[in-house]
Amino acid sequence: MLSKIYEPIREDLAKVEGSLRSVSKVEYSWLSEMLDYSLSGGGKGIRPALTLLAGKFYNYNLDYLQPMAVSVELMHTATLVHDDAIDKSLVRRGRPTINSVWGEERAVLLGDYLFARAGEFATNTQNLQVVRLFSQTLGTISSGELGQTLSAFRLKQTREDYLQRISHKTASLFSLATESGAILSQAPEKSIQMLKDYGYNLGIAFQIVDDILDFTGTEEELGKPVGSDLAQGTLTLPAMLLLEYYPEDNPVKRLFENGDKQENIRLAIESIRNSPIIEECFAVAAEYSGRARKRLEQLPDNTSRQALVNLADYIITRRK
Amino acid sequence: MLSKIYEPIREDLAKVEGSLRSVSKVEYSWLSEMLDYSLSGGGKGIRPALTLLAGKFYNYNLDYLQPMAVSVELMHTATLVHDDAIDKSLVRRGRPTINSVWGEERAVLLGDYLFARAGEFATNTQNLQVVRLFSQTLGTISSGELGQTLSAFRLKQTREDYLQRISHKTASLFSLATESGAILSQAPEKSIQMLKDYGYNLGIAFQIVDDILDFTGTEEELGKPVGSDLAQGTLTLPAMLLLEYYPEDNPVKRLFENGDKQENIRLAIESIRNSPIIEECFAVAAEYSGRARKRLEQLPDNTSRQALVNLADYIITRRK
Repeated sequence: MLSKIYEPIREDLAKVEGSLRSVSKVEYSWLSEMLDYSLSGGGKGIRPALTLLAGKFYNYNLDYLQPMAVSVELMHTATLVHDDAIDKSLVRRGRPTINSVWGEERAVLLGDYLFARAGEFATNTQNLQVVRLFSQTLGTISSGELGQTLSAFRLKQTREDYLQRISHKTASLFSLATESGAILSQAPEKSIQMLKDYGYNLGIAFQIVDDILDFTGTEEELGKPVGSDLAQGTLTLPAMLLLEYYPEDNPVKRLFENGDKQENIRLAIESIRNSPIIEECFAVAAEYSGRARKRLEQLPDNTSRQALVNLADYIITRRK
Repeated sequence: MLSKIYEPIREDLAKVEGSLRSVSKVEYSWLSEMLDYSLSGGGKGIRPALTLLAGKFYNYNLDYLQPMAVSVELMHTATLVHDDAIDKSLVRRGRPTINSVWGEERAVLLGDYLFARAGEFATNTQNLQVVRLFSQTLGTISSGELGQTLSAFRLKQTREDYLQRISHKTASLFSLATESGAILSQAPEKSIQMLKDYGYNLGIAFQIVDDILDFTGTEEELGKPVGSDLAQGTLTLPAMLLLEYYPEDNPVKRLFENGDKQENIRLAIESIRNSPIIEECFAVAAEYSGRARKRLEQLPDNTSRQALVNLADYIITRRK
């Protein structure tokens, strides 16, 4: 399904993957091994695809777009490595995490190294504006993650809090991916803004669906335990709605107030699945996906625009 | 003493400190507090001073040198925050570490945030070459730290291993500081190389002295427990020489082979202090400091060059 959407950039995405593989070709075999492991996890490649697709409306120049696509994927990988180390997560994408194989200390340093390489690829775009956006996005992501640690196991959170959190955590990198693609293809200012907004809204929709799947998916589909967010004390949209539905007695409330962990997570998953919550959450995701699509309307109509439309549709129907 | 050396750049260094303070002026008060704490630890300011001094031989332009000086100090701070989190160190510069106040998770994310801001300041130099050097240096430092975790508690290490380790960990950032100052002041290629080499050799000398002081200093002078390196399993030059002096029976050997920790650290400190090892180590540091000074000889003779000479002298005589 995704591979069909990626069709207009298939060959170039393969080149990006080639560059990503080259990142692990370093002097030290122990570092090479860790890099190889962290970069071969089989991600969806949405962020690099966004950069390439967003770069296809004006002057498509792979010399600049390819390093940027590599850069956003490396930054994404680095944040995952740090997140897993911080959360002490043991499994991601069906495989042991870096921290569970090499320890948390090395996971932190490997993440730093990946940030460094991401920054280096960003400079290969020869575009200072893009490099500055890269740094600012890393700042947004890390301050967002910091904010998340402060809100962990807190019941009093608004939907605005939630949206701001996922905006920092996910939408900022999606919008970096599209905005940088637009800038590097010398798109006019208005088009840059449209593609940036597209990426932003797509990122929000993507993260809401991610948060839904954490309740509705299977461990096999998710590649990690179901209900991981709740286990970390992260209040996502489905859990928030459950709190709104049953403000008095609620397994999320009991969990956050130090009730039995496993039992309350199980009950929360069950209650959410057997309620209109999932549908409501998908409706919110669909709204953002719709906003994303809408921002494409004034762009030149080409295969890349169609791919971005399809991606917006895919993102809210995906099951993993 | 240092303040006298910094005299030629006193006012501009104050501006750099002002910029550093402005880093903690952010929207979120909790982030502001953490930043303020991490940036007010009272470091020596050697790295930003190096950037300014190295920039004073040709076209001294504070518009570019100031953000770079801020950038190197932020990168330095970020690496300290991560190192402390990884080593679970409780005290630095006489104060509780970020991780001991806010926890390791937040220390990791704060470090990421500081890297991001460092990168942003680097882009304010408007010089892509310098930004690329910035990213490459971060890669060198983090891969060096990764290498250090692999060599922890290993007895079979050569002096070359040690020098490579401190070259990655310390000299790389010192040489970034001077090289970037030179580049941003449009120094000719030969002078850039000289100032880069100066920074590199100074960094090696600085780290060797740091490693000596870890044995000879007092807890008050160091701002952290004496013998911290050994406690972390890091084999530094003094401990290496002790192993060379007493290959058969040696407290370092016993410590690394799971002997009593406190007792063997105490014995190692005592043995090293009561031996010619300290003198030998200072001689090695002096050699690198001399190499650094030598690299300045062909540069224009001005107050900045004199300050760099004095800094090379200071670095091997400092007691904290």
